Amino acid sequence: MTDGAILIAGETRQADARFEAISPSSGEKLEGSYSEATTDDVAKACSAAAEAAEIFGTLSPDERASFLEAVADAIEAIGDELIVTGMAETALPRARLEGERGRTCGQLRLFASEVRDGHWLNIRIDEALPERKPLPRADLRLMNVAYGPVAVFGASNFPLAFSVAGGDTASAFAAGCPVVVKGHPAHPGTGELIAKAISKAVADKGLPGGVFSYLPGTTHELGGALVADPNITAVGFTGSRAGGLALMEIAQKREVPIPVYAEMSAINPVVLMPHAMSEKAAALGTAFIGSLVMGSGQFCTNPGLVVALDSPELDTFEAAAIKALADTQPASMLTAGICKAFAEGTSKLTSHDKVRKLGGSQPAEAPTSADSAIFETSGEAFLADEALSAEVFGAASLIIRCADEAELLKVLSGLEGQLTATLHLTDADETLAAKVLPILKEKAGRVLANGWPTGVEVTHAMVHGGPFPATSAPATTSVGTLAMQRYLRPVCYQDIPDALLPAALKSANPWKLPRRVNGEYQS
Amino acid sequence: MTDGAILIAGETRQADARFEAISPSSGEKLEGSYSEATTDDVAKACSAAAEAAEIFGTLSPDERASFLEAVADAIEAIGDELIVTGMAETALPRARLEGERGRTCGQLRLFASEVRDGHWLNIRIDEALPERKPLPRADLRLMNVAYGPVAVFGASNFPLAFSVAGGDTASAFAAGCPVVVKGHPAHPGTGELIAKAISKAVADKGLPGGVFSYLPGTTHELGGALVADPNITAVGFTGSRAGGLALMEIAQKREVPIPVYAEMSAINPVVLMPHAMSEKAAALGTAFIGSLVMGSGQFCTNPGLVVALDSPELDTFEAAAIKALADTQPASMLTAGICKAFAEGTSKLTSHDKVRKLGGSQPAEAPTSADSAIFETSGEAFLADEALSAEVFGAASLIIRCADEAELLKVLSGLEGQLTATLHLTDADETLAAKVLPILKEKAGRVLANGWPTGVEVTHAMVHGGPFPATSAPATTSVGTLAMQRYLRPVCYQDIPDALLPAALKSANPWKLPRRVNGEYQS
Repeated sequence: MTDGAILIAGETRQADARFEAISPSSGEKLEGSYSEATTDDVAKACSAAAEAAEIFGTLSPDERASFLEAVADAIEAIGDELIVTGMAETALPRARLEGERGRTCGQLRLFASEVRDGHWLNIRIDEALPERKPLPRADLRLMNVAYGPVAVFGASNFPLAFSVAGGDTASAFAAGCPVVVKGHPAHPGTGELIAKAISKAVADKGLPGGVFSYLPGTTHELGGALVADPNITAVGFTGSRAGGLALMEIAQKREVPIPVYAEMSAINPVVLMPHAMSEKAAALGTAFIGSLVMGSGQFCTNPGLVVALDSPELDTFEAAAIKALADTQPASMLTAGICKAFAEGTSKLTSHDKVRKLGGSQPAEAPTSADSAIFETSGEAFLADEALSAEVFGAASLIIRCADEAELLKVLSGLEGQLTATLHLTDADETLAAKVLPILKEKAGRVLANGWPTGVEVTHAMVHGGPFPATSAPATTSVGTLAMQRYLRPVCYQDIPDALLPAALKSANPWKLPRRVNGEYQS
Repeated sequence: MTDGAILIAGETRQADARFEAISPSSGEKLEGSYSEATTDDVAKACSAAAEAAEIFGTLSPDERASFLEAVADAIEAIGDELIVTGMAETALPRARLEGERGRTCGQLRLFASEVRDGHWLNIRIDEALPERKPLPRADLRLMNVAYGPVAVFGASNFPLAFSVAGGDTASAFAAGCPVVVKGHPAHPGTGELIAKAISKAVADKGLPGGVFSYLPGTTHELGGALVADPNITAVGFTGSRAGGLALMEIAQKREVPIPVYAEMSAINPVVLMPHAMSEKAAALGTAFIGSLVMGSGQFCTNPGLVVALDSPELDTFEAAAIKALADTQPASMLTAGICKAFAEGTSKLTSHDKVRKLGGSQPAEAPTSADSAIFETSGEAFLADEALSAEVFGAASLIIRCADEAELLKVLSGLEGQLTATLHLTDADETLAAKVLPILKEKAGRVLANGWPTGVEVTHAMVHGGPFPATSAPATTSVGTLAMQRYLRPVCYQDIPDALLPAALKSANPWKLPRRVNGEYQS
């Protein structure tokens, strides 16, 4: 049951100021109301997080892994209420939310196993060389330590997997960092259910309450205060470019600037190679729409740009895409704001004199439903107007018809940083692909072939990141086990007596961690 | 022989605008003159770096390691001219510069062996699971790739080990990044000799000239233009806090913001524990001065702050320190600017009404020589005035006499981020040390016991970094093999045909690199 509470370090509080959740299907307010957390709540939550940091950051790998597993168990224990609440608040279908719950809990358990694995500590020991000339070498021991309290901003488009207990929270917990979540106002009931599950796991494991706090609210001031709080040491954010840039600016203006790991925007180019098109242009056109309209196009990795050579095969691709899209029902978007921004974005493309609208879905009727649409322009026009590279968040995509290979390479070289870049090719396309791949590698965190960018595996080799403006930190990923590296920093201990060393570095290696000793890897 | 040239991608150019090197010993101009590189030179150098990036970034580990070794060989081949030029430009003694040359070449060779080792690529392969339900898993392969062209700012205080071919350049090369160096105007001849050696190695190895360029100059505009150049993707800097903050601001205001790895300032607290003081207060006082005056105090890790409990032992420590310092000759500082800033810093301390000057070295006579000095204040006064935490770059240190343990812990908790923090202790100090260590770990990149912070090993377990304002990027180190991680970013390749995969990720593993496959480490 939700009651709209703020959760600070295991304590709940009801605020006088309230807000409601809105049904994306009907546009009506849903039952119940939620507290607007205040800047005073921010200060209390962050102070409690700072107090919990040392204990939480120095748990043994097994203790921290058990906590992550307890969070997953507690989320599963919520049962169907979580799914029903999520469906009402997001209009996402049951199967999607059940799948996302599975991904969220699987992600927590994967981080648990990664924490136990221990390589993330990056332990390096260079033993003392007392006889070395001209000077002896001290005993040097490096390990990663937790960064400190992390502020996490839930995303609207993954109300479970990238919200309160999503990838940012899971990876920060895995690294040993207390988390203060600013809840997304589009799914406050879903957020509160998850927040209570996390709080229960914190209590059940006997951890300090400050390990987790949850601040629901609708204002930019709340988020700004959280990033500016002196006890916060890093920020995880998934959302719009404007939102990410605003948080980056606040973080940089602090007395002590802190890193913001913002995953912001991308149009995820898909390059159609000539031989792949000769072989299966129509099938590609149909499959393209399948990826485009998935989740009403509200994925960070949505294919918003298709780049291909002018050819009869491109006509075939477009015809198949137009047909597939025409058969598609308009789908509810997550919020009225997203829906409005989408309508503005597609309207700009529709009225652009160098852009042609190719087709759309069935017309939208519900208040937050949107017409999906595909557009076409020339390589020349695309190169001449950088406004055409702007992300339109939702199921809209622009096909770039390039005059020749040189123009295609120019279009790709001119792109901003992206989360993904996709190639459709056959063996016969290898010569051109060998020119395209090095460009795409510079543009994106993930380069894929003969698939579609939507669908992000949570695993060891995943990179969900990429050059600016896809993210604010191109050397990181927000999905996959590597994500926890964002919340770690190395510390070198020199000649510290064994009794005072952290357990991870003691000579007897009580936690049986993998180490690199004098340059050699031991497992 | 030096001729004052700018080196851009293997080509030399003489500018009309010139500057001279100044002898720190005499204050007189040294023979010869040096080109002032222009913003046009910046654009050319960065463009050439961008052109060289793909080839240089995708060399095999062995090819890149051989290049690093060739740079070391070429530096050694300069012979005594390097040492003589360095002595004239920096007033550092022969033994120091010979040692620093050894460190510089050793560092290049250590990175070469690290590049060959291959773990830095962080290769992770999650194999395809075509039968997985409900959806198959794609083949996912992660590797680190080079970030792109790096701008390096040479430091004045290590004219070899942290200048043109110093730690930033070596680690960027190791990661596969072309480098454009802004030469430090305090040692232009030394810089040019090294730059020519690097250029020779680039040519000898048949690499594109753009792998390295060298821009001598004296203006802030030159450095600003370098950081702002759109082809630059990251910055390595060692210098003042003001300088680092200025570069950070330029980097953040770019259309595409880039990371600045700035190692800026620290006062490197040394905590004297009661039992260690009972045992050897006088010896510690003498040794403290040895560390303080080393290199005229011009080390980033100079012990600028000593924290101890009020006690007769602290009187003994101070008496020994006063005596040792009084026997010390004043030493030439690197530049007139550093000398002036040092005099201003010590004069502020001398005139501070809560600070007592304990003693000094022999008085300075040469124009860029400085009187070393030690000061004392109370914990209360230190806590009340944050100006007392400001770095005075050079051989000056402030001893904080704390009333009790609580005040000592408060002083340490209130410190800014540091490169190092030092504890002097015996077994009997463990209880207090166990309270102090977690505080120091949050404050510094390296925590050491029973030694002095000056002297930074170049090895695997070293961290020369720390929380802001010691550095702009607390999760990194600028010394040791981990430093190359600053210039790498992960890319995931999904279902890319083997023929098109980078060699590092091909199934046959032609470079025999260590890999993590389906979560398991293989070597």
